[in-house]
Amino acid sequence: MKNNQFARLKPNLKTKIAELKQINFLNQSSLSLTDPIQLWRELVVKAFPQAKTAAVQTTKLASLAATETETLLDFTKNHPITSTAFYNVALQLLDFIADTDFSLNNPLEFCEKTQLPCQKQITDCSSVISAWYDLLNTQNKQGQLLLDRLAGDGYFANWKQPVTRPLFFNGKAQPIFDTTKLQRETVYVETELDTDLDGKLDLVKVDLIRPAETANALKVPVLFTASPYNQGTNEADAEKLMHKMSVPLQHKQTGIEDLTSDDGAKSTTNVAPISREISDTTKSAQETFTGEFSYRLNDYFLARGFAVVYSAGIGTKDSDGLRTCGSIAETIAAKNVIEWLIGDRPAFVSRNSTQAITAWWSNGAVAMTGKSYLGTLATAVATTGVTGLKTIIAEAAISNWYDYYRDHGLVVAPGGFPGEDADVLAQECFSRKQTGGDYLKIKETAQQQLAAITIGQDRNSGNYNYFWDQRNYLKDMQHIKADVILVHGLNDWNVKLRNVYNTWQKLQALPIQKKLILHQGQHIYINNLRSLDFTDMMNLWLSHELYGLNNQAEQVLPSVLVQDNITPEKWLTTNRWQSSNQALPTLNLAPNELKVGKVSTSKAHFNDQLSPEKFEKYQHNLTSWQHDLLTNGSPLENHRLLFKTKPSNHKISLRGVPQVTLKVAVNQNCGLLSLMLVDYGVARRLQESPSVLSFRGIQLGYNWQEENAVDFKLDAQPSPWKMITKGHLNLQNRQHPWQVDELNPNTYYSLTTELQPMFYQLPAGHQLGLIIYATDFGMTVQGNQNLEYSFELENCHLNLPGCQFENAFS
Amino acid sequence: MKNNQFARLKPNLKTKIAELKQINFLNQSSLSLTDPIQLWRELVVKAFPQAKTAAVQTTKLASLAATETETLLDFTKNHPITSTAFYNVALQLLDFIADTDFSLNNPLEFCEKTQLPCQKQITDCSSVISAWYDLLNTQNKQGQLLLDRLAGDGYFANWKQPVTRPLFFNGKAQPIFDTTKLQRETVYVETELDTDLDGKLDLVKVDLIRPAETANALKVPVLFTASPYNQGTNEADAEKLMHKMSVPLQHKQTGIEDLTSDDGAKSTTNVAPISREISDTTKSAQETFTGEFSYRLNDYFLARGFAVVYSAGIGTKDSDGLRTCGSIAETIAAKNVIEWLIGDRPAFVSRNSTQAITAWWSNGAVAMTGKSYLGTLATAVATTGVTGLKTIIAEAAISNWYDYYRDHGLVVAPGGFPGEDADVLAQECFSRKQTGGDYLKIKETAQQQLAAITIGQDRNSGNYNYFWDQRNYLKDMQHIKADVILVHGLNDWNVKLRNVYNTWQKLQALPIQKKLILHQGQHIYINNLRSLDFTDMMNLWLSHELYGLNNQAEQVLPSVLVQDNITPEKWLTTNRWQSSNQALPTLNLAPNELKVGKVSTSKAHFNDQLSPEKFEKYQHNLTSWQHDLLTNGSPLENHRLLFKTKPSNHKISLRGVPQVTLKVAVNQNCGLLSLMLVDYGVARRLQESPSVLSFRGIQLGYNWQEENAVDFKLDAQPSPWKMITKGHLNLQNRQHPWQVDELNPNTYYSLTTELQPMFYQLPAGHQLGLIIYATDFGMTVQGNQNLEYSFELENCHLNLPGCQFENAFS
Repeated sequence: MKNNQFARLKPNLKTKIAELKQINFLNQSSLSLTDPIQLWRELVVKAFPQAKTAAVQTTKLASLAATETETLLDFTKNHPITSTAFYNVALQLLDFIADTDFSLNNPLEFCEKTQLPCQKQITDCSSVISAWYDLLNTQNKQGQLLLDRLAGDGYFANWKQPVTRPLFFNGKAQPIFDTTKLQRETVYVETELDTDLDGKLDLVKVDLIRPAETANALKVPVLFTASPYNQGTNEADAEKLMHKMSVPLQHKQTGIEDLTSDDGAKSTTNVAPISREISDTTKSAQETFTGEFSYRLNDYFLARGFAVVYSAGIGTKDSDGLRTCGSIAETIAAKNVIEWLIGDRPAFVSRNSTQAITAWWSNGAVAMTGKSYLGTLATAVATTGVTGLKTIIAEAAISNWYDYYRDHGLVVAPGGFPGEDADVLAQECFSRKQTGGDYLKIKETAQQQLAAITIGQDRNSGNYNYFWDQRNYLKDMQHIKADVILVHGLNDWNVKLRNVYNTWQKLQALPIQKKLILHQGQHIYINNLRSLDFTDMMNLWLSHELYGLNNQAEQVLPSVLVQDNITPEKWLTTNRWQSSNQALPTLNLAPNELKVGKVSTSKAHFNDQLSPEKFEKYQHNLTSWQHDLLTNGSPLENHRLLFKTKPSNHKISLRGVPQVTLKVAVNQNCGLLSLMLVDYGVARRLQESPSVLSFRGIQLGYNWQEENAVDFKLDAQPSPWKMITKGHLNLQNRQHPWQVDELNPNTYYSLTTELQPMFYQLPAGHQLGLIIYATDFGMTVQGNQNLEYSFELENCHLNLPGCQFENAFS
Repeated sequence: MKNNQFARLKPNLKTKIAELKQINFLNQSSLSLTDPIQLWRELVVKAFPQAKTAAVQTTKLASLAATETETLLDFTKNHPITSTAFYNVALQLLDFIADTDFSLNNPLEFCEKTQLPCQKQITDCSSVISAWYDLLNTQNKQGQLLLDRLAGDGYFANWKQPVTRPLFFNGKAQPIFDTTKLQRETVYVETELDTDLDGKLDLVKVDLIRPAETANALKVPVLFTASPYNQGTNEADAEKLMHKMSVPLQHKQTGIEDLTSDDGAKSTTNVAPISREISDTTKSAQETFTGEFSYRLNDYFLARGFAVVYSAGIGTKDSDGLRTCGSIAETIAAKNVIEWLIGDRPAFVSRNSTQAITAWWSNGAVAMTGKSYLGTLATAVATTGVTGLKTIIAEAAISNWYDYYRDHGLVVAPGGFPGEDADVLAQECFSRKQTGGDYLKIKETAQQQLAAITIGQDRNSGNYNYFWDQRNYLKDMQHIKADVILVHGLNDWNVKLRNVYNTWQKLQALPIQKKLILHQGQHIYINNLRSLDFTDMMNLWLSHELYGLNNQAEQVLPSVLVQDNITPEKWLTTNRWQSSNQALPTLNLAPNELKVGKVSTSKAHFNDQLSPEKFEKYQHNLTSWQHDLLTNGSPLENHRLLFKTKPSNHKISLRGVPQVTLKVAVNQNCGLLSLMLVDYGVARRLQESPSVLSFRGIQLGYNWQEENAVDFKLDAQPSPWKMITKGHLNLQNRQHPWQVDELNPNTYYSLTTELQPMFYQLPAGHQLGLIIYATDFGMTVQGNQNLEYSFELENCHLNLPGCQFENAFS
């Protein structure tokens, strides 16, 4: 266990006292106490909100060990306070177990080892107050703040006074709102679009959840999650549409894509539709909902005075319009929801009503949240610069759909989803199909639209074209006005790292606040990761951004926060993705070797074609393919090139975008290359998926939603290697993804290509490996073609801009 | 999708009308309608409880397709009712998707294919009512009854009258209770034990949740889950205590265990403690709790007029006493909780109070629920014959702890937990340690008790002894008075099949109701399995058992319900585990062959010792070991014997307990054998773990807990084999687990041993295989000893009593 809290404020004693009074831990009577042991006892009693009488409270004091021999109950009768006793009790309140997790002999040692905050000296009332304040803001064994845990146990529920405004403590909103009374309402926002071409503006369904306390003049901010999956998905359709991966790579006609026009895939637009006439306006919704497919981070905020809004957007169940997979229309539909939330756009009480309804309970401050497609829409909406959107928390978001489904002129599937493409996803999210009566009317239009997407995405070429250019948010990032938090997994091969890297680079120039969090997970949420106080950080952030609380969130939260890949539960803070000291070293390719310094002339080659048995085996067993690809002397020995450095003589920080320069020839008029950087060295490595540490161990409020506590553990067994990053390209797109060049058989071409960005610590003693191969069974097409690739090694090298490793491999 | 509902009642029209009136689907006005289409429309409108006004209801009618061209809204204006239109709408209400799951052209075909109940003719009001009633009782795409789904959408929440009693529909209690008002109370039941030897009777903490409506004279039955894990576990301690598996098998002294006395491990008892004096009695608890680690089946019943009680028992957090892993004391402590629930025993408001509190809200009818250790305690308590316990639903329950940790004189770990034993589990569940102040007082006693368990379990011998005999509930099954439902996974190698098989056999003689459900899972709950209406069955059962509802549950539910292992979503009903037609065939062993009929004299042998490299590899990679063990020509070729039948010419039902007779010699004075039955034949088989079909897709009430819908899918790829069952024995225990015989080196001994019970369909064309081996890397000790096993094959055979397969292999 290591404590890593970045959202903990360290106020002075005066502020601590004021805040503790506000949450009823202190009052005039307790502040007048002079005996620190009595004050301490009173505070500890309050940490058992489930105990309703003095008798039960006494048993709770007896349940805590103050020393190796005495309970807290006995200790407070017989001794003065000591920091040992204080932290023995504190650690138990944090769910650490005496004798197992820590020794009652020396709790401070445990605190130090685990980075838990503690005060060495606790002698008077002031030090008790100060330490108690810090304790309430310390994460327990499950990674939850003690005060949040107490709230889950009923601390705030015991208060009898009605809630009229949010309560902040240590800069963060507290769960004082009654979640059993949350109001769930459905409204229909009129967008500015007519994507289903019926002559009427598309309405999109909006499911909102707001604290009941808004009925009494309280205005609340909104967490808005635009989730196309929220209303259901067409799994069966998507499965049927999946594209075949066992197809040969084909020669492409040379040329340059015209990014200004859309031949064949352009949606026809009809006469501009007009807005629905408003007959009257109400504050009362006429429809409710249940079973929202919620994001637990949103649930957490529902207990804290924030409203939550879900909208799946055009083409989803109970909404008008069509799905278009990341198009501008999808962005606009989500933007329109925000416009309703700030009073700039009408919504109606039902799909056929002229009665408008306002977001009268909204304070006009909106944050967008969500992961993957959800985070993508948050990013996309931010690029519109829409008023009211104060911040986005974009997790594992796509910044350019080309970087999701393509790479350098090649069809490259998102990891785990071979055969998926824009058309598949559009159809999968087209849950409007599930309202059978509604679907009857738009079936034909929808099928035309889907066909247009299939043409537009142009799977045959894999080129960056008009279709993809329309789905590239990077072009509009200069319009972003909202502050941005980016979160991404360094092992995310679904939404690859280039997406977040490019966004981060674009944001640098903008006069906004921006933060970046890179974790060691794949395509996951991190709100319940024990080793990081992500949820608390977001609370600090949103209390500031949406309630205007002056809590220094912008300064307190680090610019770049990166989870270490060697040591569990270790987080690094920095200001940049790349290292500031740009050493720009070059590693040259020699036979089987990657080295600094001169190499002599030599050639290398491999053939991509496998025996039918081997080919079929790898198609069905990616683990076995990856194993053989990375292992010396495996059945893939002659089907790829492997270059390794010497073992490094110190730890190396590999950051940024690796560049590979090659001089390559292929025996036919088409070809593709895959490039992989590998950490070679036997070590127990972090698992890529977090393990559940405590099932349903975190309560997000009082008798409210629960969440598992999870974290990354080390693999039980050591492994010989780990892939760091990789990249792919079509040899005909060696200059640009939108430009197809000739590829003459058996002719050497020079090219430089970029792999996906990385942030990786290569341990001392490990070797850095570069693998050059062609078919990537997890991502590229698999033609099993007789493609022979040859290399002039003396003209091949690996550049790692922004990495520091002078003399590491010498 | 296949519909398998066993809890659906089929009442006559009169009853249907009466019940529909009771739940407000019909009233005088709708019953006076003569136009079936108008009645239908009114019923469908009620299926949208989220729509609060007529305007919204109209949009909902428009959202349903009645035919290929018309919405329900249009259709009801223009046409008479048809069964096609009725079931088109019905299927959409069940969340099936027109055009994807079924064709609007022919919904009845889909119903037939999926076994969904439907009426061919729907022409008048009576047929509409009848079909609607059936529809409400039909499971939707997620496996949830439509009425339960509507309840989740707010159907019952819309009623304004106060709830005074449970509401039953189709024989099952409905979720009409307000779960936001559930009362959570903690009390301390005084047991009849003093296991921590402090001279005072042990109190055990009881967390109870009851409907708020009990405040108004409603008495409710109780679902009681005795879960030793419920208050936390000592994972770290357990890990430290885990026994080493890489130890050699050792020779044992011959002899017979004395089952009547406990040498060394007997707990000392002190002077009989006396009951706590009661000063006064209250109805009000003084302590509450949150974040109960609930069983979702219990949560489901909390919305339906049942209370739920959790008690972790002696030696757990906030309770007195010590853990003793399945001892009689643990049984008694749980039994004592029931005695409190029926008014026969006091509980106190806190651990140090003399104020008693009664279960004044209890109707005195109790069911015990839970899986694994929890189901074990349910079984154990049932053997006490305690009054008030009406039924148990024992899932994956242990019936004899020897069958959990041992097999025929051998230490045999539960699958997935090598090195675990009774002492490890006792310490793991000893969560009382986590109340640090409390632990100070009993540390020493607890350590002595733990040491006694380690001695008692006698890992060195592996024999059935006094310790295990004390933990064998089979001895007391004749005392069971409660009706019993047994649930077990046919792939459960944690709690092995012998446990449930033996219980089932014992129950046959008892004048109680008993039911058995065998599913294809491992050690899992099945309340959320889509292909079976388990939750509904339990509702039917508990409405009958605990509320005395006359719903024919005993007759309606099948005696034995078994999930098929070949076809997904197929359940077989039968009356017995073994086939009634006992063909008693014998399969003889010949070199590499298993055959009916004569075999000639021959010997076979294998040596268990592996190269250190292979040995180490298998220790860390069970999948690879299992693969090599079952595969011809693998590196294990000379380390095991493999016998196969000819391919079967028809499907064979393999049921009951396989018996293997061997004539075997070993080259040393100790030896162990493992025996495995295998289905050989390339096929796509059911996955052993269910997949999530719909994440959080089932609502257990209105804005109440959610559950995933899951089911077993077929593996994407075919596999060459599947283990059917296996068994193990120590060659020195060839007669009895409590009897150690001499084993002279190189001397042939005859023995007959039993494998774990099975219920398996061997498909036509497959071969039945028998593997004889020694070290089981998943379960036995691993000494890698030079043990050479020899067999006189002509004296070896496999008997499958209760299986029918005459002429199958000829």
